[in-house]
Amino acid sequence: MIQGIFHIILVEPRYDGNIGSVARVMKNFGFRNLILVKPPPIGPEGRKNSMHARDIMEKAKVVDSFDEAIEGFDVVVGTSAQFGGDANTLRTPVFPEDLSKAFDAKGKVALLFGREDYGLLNEEIERCDMLVTIPAHHEYPTLNLAQSAAILLYELSREANRRKLKKKKFRQMNETDKKYMLKFYDELVDEVYEHDFERKLAKRTYRSIIGRAFTSGREAKTMTGVFRHAKDKIK
Amino acid sequence: MIQGIFHIILVEPRYDGNIGSVARVMKNFGFRNLILVKPPPIGPEGRKNSMHARDIMEKAKVVDSFDEAIEGFDVVVGTSAQFGGDANTLRTPVFPEDLSKAFDAKGKVALLFGREDYGLLNEEIERCDMLVTIPAHHEYPTLNLAQSAAILLYELSREANRRKLKKKKFRQMNETDKKYMLKFYDELVDEVYEHDFERKLAKRTYRSIIGRAFTSGREAKTMTGVFRHAKDKIK
Repeated sequence: MIQGIFHIILVEPRYDGNIGSVARVMKNFGFRNLILVKPPPIGPEGRKNSMHARDIMEKAKVVDSFDEAIEGFDVVVGTSAQFGGDANTLRTPVFPEDLSKAFDAKGKVALLFGREDYGLLNEEIERCDMLVTIPAHHEYPTLNLAQSAAILLYELSREANRRKLKKKKFRQMNETDKKYMLKFYDELVDEVYEHDFERKLAKRTYRSIIGRAFTSGREAKTMTGVFRHAKDKIK
Repeated sequence: MIQGIFHIILVEPRYDGNIGSVARVMKNFGFRNLILVKPPPIGPEGRKNSMHARDIMEKAKVVDSFDEAIEGFDVVVGTSAQFGGDANTLRTPVFPEDLSKAFDAKGKVALLFGREDYGLLNEEIERCDMLVTIPAHHEYPTLNLAQSAAILLYELSREANRRKLKKKKFRQMNETDKKYMLKFYDELVDEVYEHDFERKLAKRTYRSIIGRAFTSGREAKTMTGVFRHAKDKIK
């Protein structure tokens, strides 16, 4: 499981409410390992925001320094709202979706989030192997800490979570579903229209819609039923 | 601009703090149009969380009913944490990245977020043209309202924001940068190693690293300098 290799490190967060929100979104996306560098005491805000992820917040490892936090990691990934561009080699970042492609289920990766006000310090960024930034609007690019975490953890886990959801509950329309649906649709169209150009347009249009619609097997069967019955009624 | 076509609608949000957080993340990603259905009064939490997006919160259109909110939209997109699977045709959702592909800069799209506790009601979902869900972990799939908004707005805007960032500040390494860098690297390697197999491995390895590293033009020039000077020193 990809989520297992990532440890989330909050570097000197100021508000316990943000720690709670980060814990919640970690659990939302299947992450478990939280490390806190010099955190504030957890109060009511933290407990409220963590919701059903209070266990993650309470089991977080608390350390006294940045060095201690990143000890033992194979790759250290920093996050930054500032887009340095290529004038500053140190801060040339990758985008979140690049990050999600870069790791597989081996190794141990630290994902660092800086302070609410100052982010990560330059000397901390220098210790990172990689810097990731969320592409935001130039007018106001500074995201809230927990929002940044939400987006990065979503990106890192989405393939895994998506695959699981699809496997469990969702069956995409397969070739057989589609063949039957289109067979009955086409027969219906042939009943409805006489001219060849009308028939062709109607057939092409429905195929195009279906192609864009991420149709499920169940939905295809439902539509097949509709077309079949409509045709029978006409005949 | 893709952001212009989307209007964010919060349906009966309970906490003004969440309205503030949603306003902030809207501005972070370049969205402006907020509609609130029966919102609570905006208090200190809302103002605090909105940060530099207080204008968006204060200019939000306030309406009394769901019907009024979705009036005049070409496409109404609902959001849901519940993954209905294909047993319930009504709730077969698309994923965020599919949504971002589905729209271009025409039309007027409403993106609906439901209540913090109950989400959207079934009769509201029936009024939607499309339902989007964020793939989350089965153990705790319910995201905070503002976190869901962050992820969806990130997805919808990232191509636009990414393109702008790249155009403005970041120039990817081009073919010429790369050719020169590798020329000097290879000459350096030839100076360093005598055996062909060592040379080959060294050359292949660096190419592979560079390929994975999303190298910028500036970085390539820097490395070229390093290799050229190193080679000169050796000679």
